[in-house]
Amino acid sequence: MPAYSSMEKTELSKELAKLEGYYENYKSQGLSLNMARGKPGSAQLDISNEMFYSITPETNFKTADCPDCRNYGGLEGIIEARQLFADIMGVEAKNVMVGGNSSLNMMFDTIACMMETSWGKQEKLKFLCPAPGYDRHFGITQYFGIEMITIPMSATGPDMDMIEKLVEDSTVKGIWCVPKYSNPQGITYSDETVKRFAALKPAAKDFRIMWDNAYIIHDISDTPDTLLNIFDEVKKTGNEDMVFEFCSTSKITFPGAGVAALAASDNNLAILKKRYQYQTIGYDKLNMLRHVKYFGDINGVLAHMQKHKAVLQPRFDMVTDTLERELADLGIASWTKPNGGYFVSVDVMDGCAKRVVELCKNAGVVLTGAGATFPYGKDPKDSNIRVAPTYPPIEELETAMNVFCVCVKIAALEQLARYTRM
Amino acid sequence: MPAYSSMEKTELSKELAKLEGYYENYKSQGLSLNMARGKPGSAQLDISNEMFYSITPETNFKTADCPDCRNYGGLEGIIEARQLFADIMGVEAKNVMVGGNSSLNMMFDTIACMMETSWGKQEKLKFLCPAPGYDRHFGITQYFGIEMITIPMSATGPDMDMIEKLVEDSTVKGIWCVPKYSNPQGITYSDETVKRFAALKPAAKDFRIMWDNAYIIHDISDTPDTLLNIFDEVKKTGNEDMVFEFCSTSKITFPGAGVAALAASDNNLAILKKRYQYQTIGYDKLNMLRHVKYFGDINGVLAHMQKHKAVLQPRFDMVTDTLERELADLGIASWTKPNGGYFVSVDVMDGCAKRVVELCKNAGVVLTGAGATFPYGKDPKDSNIRVAPTYPPIEELETAMNVFCVCVKIAALEQLARYTRM
Repeated sequence: MPAYSSMEKTELSKELAKLEGYYENYKSQGLSLNMARGKPGSAQLDISNEMFYSITPETNFKTADCPDCRNYGGLEGIIEARQLFADIMGVEAKNVMVGGNSSLNMMFDTIACMMETSWGKQEKLKFLCPAPGYDRHFGITQYFGIEMITIPMSATGPDMDMIEKLVEDSTVKGIWCVPKYSNPQGITYSDETVKRFAALKPAAKDFRIMWDNAYIIHDISDTPDTLLNIFDEVKKTGNEDMVFEFCSTSKITFPGAGVAALAASDNNLAILKKRYQYQTIGYDKLNMLRHVKYFGDINGVLAHMQKHKAVLQPRFDMVTDTLERELADLGIASWTKPNGGYFVSVDVMDGCAKRVVELCKNAGVVLTGAGATFPYGKDPKDSNIRVAPTYPPIEELETAMNVFCVCVKIAALEQLARYTRM
Repeated sequence: MPAYSSMEKTELSKELAKLEGYYENYKSQGLSLNMARGKPGSAQLDISNEMFYSITPETNFKTADCPDCRNYGGLEGIIEARQLFADIMGVEAKNVMVGGNSSLNMMFDTIACMMETSWGKQEKLKFLCPAPGYDRHFGITQYFGIEMITIPMSATGPDMDMIEKLVEDSTVKGIWCVPKYSNPQGITYSDETVKRFAALKPAAKDFRIMWDNAYIIHDISDTPDTLLNIFDEVKKTGNEDMVFEFCSTSKITFPGAGVAALAASDNNLAILKKRYQYQTIGYDKLNMLRHVKYFGDINGVLAHMQKHKAVLQPRFDMVTDTLERELADLGIASWTKPNGGYFVSVDVMDGCAKRVVELCKNAGVVLTGAGATFPYGKDPKDSNIRVAPTYPPIEELETAMNVFCVCVKIAALEQLARYTRM
């Protein structure tokens, strides 16, 4: 099939009619498929089931700094869990705090803390939002009434020239980053990008980088990306207080019942703990212990991630293979082929993303809402769609992707037809 | 032994010398005993150990409204857990949200939400604080910069005349209540008190009662107290939006790894959920499921509480028996004999609480800091001491209480000596 742009009007009409036939056929099947969120599928959940046996009534609940994990106390989490996350993030255990089941919650609380202790006292507040990005990050900033500025992404990370310029404005208080296997593009920031982040000289002393390392060890290919350790870099530039790093076991063990953690400088940890000491007596130490006993150490975690990779690799291959087969020649879409993370980011023809999502929905395939990957839910080009291939059973994923490709083509042809008429 | 007030100066001196001898003896034993916090002891923790078996790899993780409790989702908690807490609090499941491991965290988040959505936009903010009360409540209010007004407690609850008067001030935004087995006095609000709360007509439309029902089913005597259901009462007065109720299984299963819940009107729940939807994808549903499967229903919970009662009753008896035996005749202290909860509240001679806590500490017995039970940590009479008899092994508890009584007597005699000199 040649590129649509090189086809005659009559050929395009014929192609559209054929695709509409396929579409009606899918529609009549009453499908109910979901590629909206980065949710692990059942096979991935089963991988960690043995963890339920890691705590029994016979367990010794005493650990190095906790007389009994069943009882109250331990605001920063048990030392064994802090060490495990320290090893994952490449920082010292003393700079790690282990929380509840949600790193999103820790990010929300961190933003709330900064609002209460510093940002909130100032009139105007702005945040930098590399986009496409994670909708829930943008949701938090919007909840707190912070103005969002979209930063374009490239293959090496967000536009650093733009960021270096914007942080000269003291009302710019921070930036959201998913530095490895970014949500949704799967981009890993280059060494240069990380070094430029570490060397930032923001006008605002309370400028903070929200380094959401959600996919820090979440490879899906045999040629995984590597990311520079931001804390190593900020140590060199004396910018240790500029970074909060977050990660969790949500996509390692159980999405709803994992353990989250943050890493921060001594100063920043002291600021957070001043708030946390009023907020809670301590997070669930039994779930921390359950994880620590199950994994043993970082090597146990890394071996575990290979099992996820085995489940995910064929799914991502199917998604990108289908896109390649169905769309590669047509000149109407481009996409990423990530080495890790949870998404494939597809850019359809400008002005077509909403239509594609609508067509898919009407055929029973739910995608993330078009625009969700941009601040305020507004994709200026209406072109980005986030595909999440992890949740549906693999046989349904194939159907879902076929439906998706048909919808991408139909939306493109409709668009071309409109232009042609004009 | 006659009352100290009726004794001659020389008798008092002789008594003091004798007690100082006892005290030095205790001091030389190098004790390390802790009655500072309402922490369950090991025997209580063991009661719930079988709960670890309630989830295994063979478990069906699908529940009525959750396709898989291991995965993301379910902001309000699984319906089975909401129903269990609804039954405990006597409300409808639709008005319950189940959270993480800490009701304190839910209270903190509720105050934060009210600050962000309503209170924070106003210049001056005040909160009513029945005292003696729970230091962590006061900590939250202080963290958010809300001025605290102390409300005296009586045997029927806080001074309602004073409260009814104070809520005419629109800067008064709320009140902290532990309505059953109050912390630290073990007082249960009378029916009249609850009805007067429900009938309040605060000038501030955003006035909220923080009804921390931490000890809702935590009886320790054979003649338990009963508390009117606040939500039944506010329904009658049309004040449903005035109350947030909180409880948890922290003192039912595991203090560090229980499940917390709140009950609120439809309107209030909508306000909270508007925040929670940004804060988290959902709390730990596996721990909810673990609890639900372990207990079955409310009857399972109530039967379980009998086991705690069996552990706690002899401890509380020992504390009050020791106080009775050592101090009853002396006219230098009074105390409560609660039917439930986690504390015995002792009022020593005015101006002596700090000294008693200091004497105890120097003899190796740690008590809650004097003043902690009052806003800003300042007990105006310096007389209230919170005794927490649940944590130390029972044989140590006896020693700790003997030390405590010696210290109460010494502090009183020192005080009387000062007055006599004057």
